[in-house]
Amino acid sequence: MYSEAMATQDRLIETTQELLWERGYVGTSPKAIQQRAGVGQGSMYHHFTGKSDLAAAALSRSAQQLRAQAEQQLAGPGTAYERIAAYLLRDREVLRGCRIGRMAQDPDVIAEAELRRPVEETFDWLCGRIAEIVAEGQADGEFATGPDPADIAAAVVAVLQGGYVLARAADSPEPFHQAVRGALALLRNR
Amino acid sequence: MYSEAMATQDRLIETTQELLWERGYVGTSPKAIQQRAGVGQGSMYHHFTGKSDLAAAALSRSAQQLRAQAEQQLAGPGTAYERIAAYLLRDREVLRGCRIGRMAQDPDVIAEAELRRPVEETFDWLCGRIAEIVAEGQADGEFATGPDPADIAAAVVAVLQGGYVLARAADSPEPFHQAVRGALALLRNR
Repeated sequence: MYSEAMATQDRLIETTQELLWERGYVGTSPKAIQQRAGVGQGSMYHHFTGKSDLAAAALSRSAQQLRAQAEQQLAGPGTAYERIAAYLLRDREVLRGCRIGRMAQDPDVIAEAELRRPVEETFDWLCGRIAEIVAEGQADGEFATGPDPADIAAAVVAVLQGGYVLARAADSPEPFHQAVRGALALLRNR
Repeated sequence: MYSEAMATQDRLIETTQELLWERGYVGTSPKAIQQRAGVGQGSMYHHFTGKSDLAAAALSRSAQQLRAQAEQQLAGPGTAYERIAAYLLRDREVLRGCRIGRMAQDPDVIAEAELRRPVEETFDWLCGRIAEIVAEGQADGEFATGPDPADIAAAVVAVLQGGYVLARAADSPEPFHQAVRGALALLRNR
């Protein structure tokens, strides 16, 4: 019984992760979650107080997964430039966009502290992590020491997020790859 | 009569521009448009075949306005770097995000050619315009000649779009400004 309840809870969270990624918060109804998860309304409200509670759990799990994936490249071997390049060049489902970043367009997510928090914390962590690497690169003479590492890190993260926007607008991953190549060209010569 | 009809049509377009910016396409109902515009359902369907037709007119107008605003800095005086910097540093309502870019997160916009087209065309134009300026800067010895101007331009546009995402996530314009400072620091030393 315990494991069955856990499995239901887990399926609800996973389904909500998918629907939020595809449709956003405004575009995801409790009914759509129940239908795709194959879970009844009673069961959903047994595990979660409502859509916002479930979305908070889903965003929190997506945030954990995103951090773990980013660490694979950011904590990898190589120079500062190589680690940032590995992160930017990692294989991605470009046209799906970023499941965390896309939430920032959703007015109901931004208005609700519990939902905005995992989004904000993910970017805080990511920018901070990349700023550390930029600072290491500056200390090693790899990057120019003038700019604030936090500014460079924010630009790197923004290129990814904006690259997704350009790719979805073009219905093609190419503008994403252009933006990444451009950012790496700019980073390389510092 | 003619001007009254024009005024109604105009008010419907303007209201839809606002609602799309605030709520996105999925989050904007025909009823909400009618209520905010103070226009009846019959009058709305007299001027437009439906929400998607009206949204296409609204996006098309937003795209025209965005281009005209961008040209103010991009066609201004100064070096290539100075014109790009003026564009990036222009006063913006950062927390509202980009009214064109935010549409790219909307699955129903991306799925409908008539709605996606003004979004794609705006970014094509903007990236192309900035690539011209980067190429001028390369020809003048202001920027390094290695990178493809189209890549640098895509990175610049992505920084803006991603900067909006970071700012909305943080509920503060600061990450946007950091990303712009970072991009300018990277551009300057080329």
